[in-house]
Amino acid sequence: MRTEAEYRDMIQRSLEPQLQSLGAVPEQLMDAMRYSLLAGGKRLRPVMLLASCDMAGGSLEEAMPYACALEMIHTYSLIHDDLPGMDNDDLRRGKPTNHKVFGEGLAILAGDGLLNGAMELALGASTRMAERRGILATEILARHAGVTGMIAGQTLDVTMENSTPTEALVSYIHTHKTSDLIQAPMEMGLILAGCGPAQIEQGRVYGEHMGIAFQIVDDLLDVTGDPAVLGKNTGMDARKMTWVALRGMEGARRDAETHIDAAVAALKKLPWDTAFFENMARASLDRMN
Amino acid sequence: MRTEAEYRDMIQRSLEPQLQSLGAVPEQLMDAMRYSLLAGGKRLRPVMLLASCDMAGGSLEEAMPYACALEMIHTYSLIHDDLPGMDNDDLRRGKPTNHKVFGEGLAILAGDGLLNGAMELALGASTRMAERRGILATEILARHAGVTGMIAGQTLDVTMENSTPTEALVSYIHTHKTSDLIQAPMEMGLILAGCGPAQIEQGRVYGEHMGIAFQIVDDLLDVTGDPAVLGKNTGMDARKMTWVALRGMEGARRDAETHIDAAVAALKKLPWDTAFFENMARASLDRMN
Repeated sequence: MRTEAEYRDMIQRSLEPQLQSLGAVPEQLMDAMRYSLLAGGKRLRPVMLLASCDMAGGSLEEAMPYACALEMIHTYSLIHDDLPGMDNDDLRRGKPTNHKVFGEGLAILAGDGLLNGAMELALGASTRMAERRGILATEILARHAGVTGMIAGQTLDVTMENSTPTEALVSYIHTHKTSDLIQAPMEMGLILAGCGPAQIEQGRVYGEHMGIAFQIVDDLLDVTGDPAVLGKNTGMDARKMTWVALRGMEGARRDAETHIDAAVAALKKLPWDTAFFENMARASLDRMN
Repeated sequence: MRTEAEYRDMIQRSLEPQLQSLGAVPEQLMDAMRYSLLAGGKRLRPVMLLASCDMAGGSLEEAMPYACALEMIHTYSLIHDDLPGMDNDDLRRGKPTNHKVFGEGLAILAGDGLLNGAMELALGASTRMAERRGILATEILARHAGVTGMIAGQTLDVTMENSTPTEALVSYIHTHKTSDLIQAPMEMGLILAGCGPAQIEQGRVYGEHMGIAFQIVDDLLDVTGDPAVLGKNTGMDARKMTWVALRGMEGARRDAETHIDAAVAALKKLPWDTAFFENMARASLDRMN
C-alpha cells in the first residue's frame, strides 16, 4: 500500500486525462468542468477507493476510472449546491464558485456534464472488463449518488431549512448528503478487487460511520473553522439542520468519536493490514478543512 | 408489432412504477420529478426504443427500464433548460415549468435526480441480465446524453446565443441538442434485441437523420406553430441559432425532407417490415407539436 499523498497524486494526475478521454467536448464546457474538478480538495473519496482496492489486492489502473468518476460526482454536487437557486455561495475551495466565473447556465451544464461524464467513464471501463465487477461497482456508485442517496440528502437540506431540527431528520440528511459518497468508495474498491460479500459488508459499515463522522466534523468546522483555511465562508449553515444545532458542540464532538470508533471496529474484521484506514479515521476528527 | 399509441400507453403505465422502483425517495423530490415526467408529451424516444426492439424480435419487458430511462433523461434536460439561468421559460407542455411550481432548488435537484435515476434503472436492469447487451445499451445512452452529445448541444445553444449562425454551428447544435437522444433509441433497441453490428449501424443512421429532421421541424414550429397546440411559448428561439435563421422557411423545410428521405433509405437495408418507422418519419414532417 502507498501513502494517502501518493494515492492523491495519482488521482490528480489522472483527472485531466480521464476528462479528455470523454472525447470532443465543447471548449467552454470543458473549461467549466475542469475549473471545479481540478480546484483541489482532499480527494478523500477517490483516495479511499484506490486504497481499498489496493489493500485487497486489486489493480489500481483498473480502479482509476471509477475513482475519477466518484470525484466528478462529488464535484458536480458542489457546483449545483453553490448555485443561486440553492445555497447561493460565492466561494468554494478558496476560489469563486463555478457560476461566478462561468455564469449560471454553463455552471448547470458543467454539473450535468460531470455527473453524466462520471457514468460514461465507469460504463466505458465496465464494458472493457470481462467480469461483472465493473458494472456492480457502477451500480453502487449510481445508487449512493442518487435519489435515495446524496440527492435525497440535498433535497431535505433545501426543503427543511426553516424546520426545527430533530435527531431523525438531521441524521437522515447527514447519512445521505455527505455520507453516501463517503460510504461508496470502500464498497466499490472491494468489489473491483473481487472480494466476497462479507468483506464488502465491513467496507460498507466502515464507510457509513466515516461518512456520518465526516459530516459532523464539517458542521463543527462551519462554527469554529477559519474561512481562509477552509476555503469557504463559515456560518453559512447556521439557519440549517446541523448536528451542532441538534446536539451542541460537545455532544457533536462526542458523536463523531463514537462513529469513528465504530468505523475502526469494522476494520478489525477485515483480513488485511488496515492501518491506512484506521489512521484516516482517527485523523478525520482533527482535520482543519 | 403494435401501434405507436399502444407503445405509448405501455410507457405511460410504466413510468410511475419505474420511478417507484428507485426506492424511498423524499416526497417533495418525487413530486417534482413526477410532475415533469408524467406531464405527457409524445414519448417519441421511448416509443422508438420499444418499437425497434420489438421489430427485431427482442423482449419489450426487458427493454422497458431503458425506455423509461431515456424519457427521464429527456425530461431532466427540459427541466434544466427551462431554469432562469438558462432559457428562463415558464411554460412547458402547457403547464408551468418545474421551477415555477417547486422553486429553483428543487427543480435543479429533480433534474439531477432524473438523470441519476435513469442510470440507476438502466444499471439495475443490466446487472440482472446475464449477457452484456444491457451494459452496452446503457453506455450508448450515457454517450448520447453526455458531454459530446446532448449536453454539448445545450452548451453551444447557451454560449452562442449572440453569434452569427453558420451552417457548421447550427448543424452541430442540431445534431447534438435534440438529435442525440433521438439517435440513441433505435441503436439501443437493436442492441437489446441482440442484433449484429450491420443492423445496429442502419438503426444509428435512421436515428441520426430523424433527429436532425425533428429539430428542423421544431425550429419551423417555433415560427409558425400555435402556442396553445405546442404547449409552450413560440418565438423564443428568434435570437438563437436555428435552422430557419440560417436557411429560411423554405430551405429549412426542404432540408427536413432530405433528412427524412435519408432516414427511410436506411430502413430499406433492414431485414424486417419497417413500415412503422417509415410512417413515423413521414409523419414527423407534418406534426403540429
